[in-house]
Amino acid sequence: MANNQNAELLDKARLLRHDIRDGSFTGYTSGLVPGLVQGNVVILPKVWAEDFLLYCYLNPVSCPLISMSKPGDAMVPALGADIDIRTDIPQYNVFKDGELVEQVTDIEQYWSDDMVSFVLGCSFSFEEALLRAGLSIRNIDLDRNVSMFETNIATAPSAKFFGNTVVTMRPFKPADAIRAIQITTRLPKAHGAPIHIGMPNKIGIEDLAKPEYGDSVPVNDDEIPVFWACGVTPQVAIRNAKPPLCITHVPGKMLVTDKLNDELAVL
Amino acid sequence: MANNQNAELLDKARLLRHDIRDGSFTGYTSGLVPGLVQGNVVILPKVWAEDFLLYCYLNPVSCPLISMSKPGDAMVPALGADIDIRTDIPQYNVFKDGELVEQVTDIEQYWSDDMVSFVLGCSFSFEEALLRAGLSIRNIDLDRNVSMFETNIATAPSAKFFGNTVVTMRPFKPADAIRAIQITTRLPKAHGAPIHIGMPNKIGIEDLAKPEYGDSVPVNDDEIPVFWACGVTPQVAIRNAKPPLCITHVPGKMLVTDKLNDELAVL
Repeated sequence: MANNQNAELLDKARLLRHDIRDGSFTGYTSGLVPGLVQGNVVILPKVWAEDFLLYCYLNPVSCPLISMSKPGDAMVPALGADIDIRTDIPQYNVFKDGELVEQVTDIEQYWSDDMVSFVLGCSFSFEEALLRAGLSIRNIDLDRNVSMFETNIATAPSAKFFGNTVVTMRPFKPADAIRAIQITTRLPKAHGAPIHIGMPNKIGIEDLAKPEYGDSVPVNDDEIPVFWACGVTPQVAIRNAKPPLCITHVPGKMLVTDKLNDELAVL
Repeated sequence: MANNQNAELLDKARLLRHDIRDGSFTGYTSGLVPGLVQGNVVILPKVWAEDFLLYCYLNPVSCPLISMSKPGDAMVPALGADIDIRTDIPQYNVFKDGELVEQVTDIEQYWSDDMVSFVLGCSFSFEEALLRAGLSIRNIDLDRNVSMFETNIATAPSAKFFGNTVVTMRPFKPADAIRAIQITTRLPKAHGAPIHIGMPNKIGIEDLAKPEYGDSVPVNDDEIPVFWACGVTPQVAIRNAKPPLCITHVPGKMLVTDKLNDELAVL
């Protein structure tokens, strides 16, 4: 976790979570409090949580688990002393039987002693590492959400959880693509290295201009599209598994933690 | 250097160098004694050696220096106790005033107290690492020399040494290309990570089927061409610098050393 030398970062994160908690901030968290880990969130009833844990274990690149709560425990002390998973995400997707039924800014009405929360690493951590290394990220430059695509790459199923891998796409010139592969390799808990480069049709993407999630981001003629596994992958698996209740963050509106991105680095 | 646990490897290397020394082996060294470093060789008169040393320093990816001799010292003890640089390479290119004038199997007639030898790391070291990681290398599968191309990427000049970077090309499917970038990043003294992927025309290569050096190696539709800096780069700089005398190995016919490839790895 961040230490005293990161006090300013921690203050920023606490203030942001406060604004999120009281409903005054409900937006996208990309670029907010750079240096700190942001997380994908999945909340499930206990009876579904064990199968989902196995799903994460079997698909560590799409689903890099960084925290799992005990049933009914809404706090996430490993990621920040004050974090309350019921209120500290700008906006939540509520799924019933696999269908998105509601988007809300807190989930206290849905919480019970039966609920288990999972936090998964997120590409925002490696975006910060890429920026720090001097690379430009098109979706950030254009102030858009990253493009996300459902691929034809099947995940390993666990009980009722199954589905194809969702990827994010960022375009880079070849030398920067090589650099991006090196940098993100260091961050396996933030999806790690890309899983594909250069040939979208080979992974079932027909039109780069038409992402399934997020915004369209142009790829120039001298650029290669680079694809990373994405934390939206489990949302596809949840739609397929159809648990009676499941709550996730809204893509792009993440849990901001007190953990340093550099803490996720293996090298 | 290799230790007792690598005795078998060292025996193989010594026997191969013996066959090379007595002229009974004059062929390509790719795939011979896997596990041991093979080197590019450049031999220059002392007065040219200082400028060439700076050229290597300025262009460490093309010219990863692993040994430099004192003037007139034909031995290379850092790379193998018995190595005599005058006899232990299968075939030498002899350049006079930048022109290739002869190919010989020993250079005793050209040697003098004035000559300085340089040994540079070679892509054969990372090819072994790629094979060990389960990747297939097309030029090896086809028993051909790797394709080499002169690019439009200028090296940093040193005195009269200048020229464009020469690259080797190996085709990989996208996921293997990512893996190859990761693996070769570990080996900066063997040219390290690729310097380009995917767009040959952006680095001045018009036709992948027509390499300037080595053999043609086909690239399939589902593959990306991956380009590494190559130890033939200094041979281009030598042609440009036009020293009165310069001796190199013949591309693909390398110095086989007693150093382990794994000793070159930084991680």
